[in-house]
Amino acid sequence: MQLYDYFRSSAAYRVRIVANLKGIELEQVPVNLVKGEQRSDTHLSRNAQGLVPTLVTNDGECLTQSLAICEYLEECFPEPALLPSDPIARARVRALCQVIACEIHPLNNLRVLKHLTGELGLSDDNKLAWYRHWVRLGFDAVEAMLDASSDFCHGDNPTLADVCLVPQVFNAERFECDLGPYPRIRTVTERARALDAFAGAAPGKQADAI
Amino acid sequence: MQLYDYFRSSAAYRVRIVANLKGIELEQVPVNLVKGEQRSDTHLSRNAQGLVPTLVTNDGECLTQSLAICEYLEECFPEPALLPSDPIARARVRALCQVIACEIHPLNNLRVLKHLTGELGLSDDNKLAWYRHWVRLGFDAVEAMLDASSDFCHGDNPTLADVCLVPQVFNAERFECDLGPYPRIRTVTERARALDAFAGAAPGKQADAI
Repeated sequence: MQLYDYFRSSAAYRVRIVANLKGIELEQVPVNLVKGEQRSDTHLSRNAQGLVPTLVTNDGECLTQSLAICEYLEECFPEPALLPSDPIARARVRALCQVIACEIHPLNNLRVLKHLTGELGLSDDNKLAWYRHWVRLGFDAVEAMLDASSDFCHGDNPTLADVCLVPQVFNAERFECDLGPYPRIRTVTERARALDAFAGAAPGKQADAI
Repeated sequence: MQLYDYFRSSAAYRVRIVANLKGIELEQVPVNLVKGEQRSDTHLSRNAQGLVPTLVTNDGECLTQSLAICEYLEECFPEPALLPSDPIARARVRALCQVIACEIHPLNNLRVLKHLTGELGLSDDNKLAWYRHWVRLGFDAVEAMLDASSDFCHGDNPTLADVCLVPQVFNAERFECDLGPYPRIRTVTERARALDAFAGAAPGKQADAI
């Protein structure tokens, strides 16, 4: 399978972690978002939104949207399970994923930041304040939802919630957000980052990293 | 089960459609977002983000994030299925859901619009342009992803993709977005709206509608 990827995309980073945790070999094909390669006709034919990641299966199917791809990999490669078996627990893990993937990340991704400073003429300081505002609201909720007695976001093994959290913390650090108020988030993140599957998926470890 | 709800919340609207399609009785408890009831301590104890919907199960578990709730209902009440059985098809339906739930709706929900006109001092015209911009980008992708030969977003029965699309079209119409370029979206939406499950979940049909 091929993963159309960009080292700094936190959505692609999620898929890289899942592949590593499950031992799935992916051929990574970099798409340089800063150079605008995502807007080429070839890329748009694989991903109508012009985003990364896209997963191309061995049958040539193009799958888009990182969480849909993660659920696909979970269904096709069930071990190790990244969702619990109990429906209530699955809902809790998915809710944690969605606080990050629906309420923080979409407000702070590259195209939104460009729109703020471009079309809306916001200053870099205002852009930074915007970024940190949505991280703060989202992380306030994630921190409240985490259980201090668990090693990871849910229970004592990584789930899709950790797969979403670690890339979001990477982004928050890059934009120098204050993580002081989030001891549970920091503890879980450090524990996850110590695992090879998470460490090997980090942006700085990718072939296209600059 | 209880659904903490607001008639105009398109995330809650998704859950109402799923419940109707599956014949699940929910006791609806309105939370007036305009009056700020979502920020009360009682509501925050059920939903750390201070958002709707929250689903409270018969065991008193509080589930948040609309797509996590929809997947929970799909797992516990499997008929009629709102996700296909084939993993590739499931990924496609989930990707359609996420284009809407991760890339359109979070940029345009009430708290973001308030932040734009409040903290950032944007005019109402600029707010409207922002709203329509993200609807246009998202609907361009959804339109390209739909198959003209299907009755619904995927195949000939409603799936979670239609559950996400119909409330998003309702919002787009409310903000007078131009839906001319989206014949597939319009056709699918009209077909879904003709079903009782969708019609009964519409904002105007809820007890708290004003």
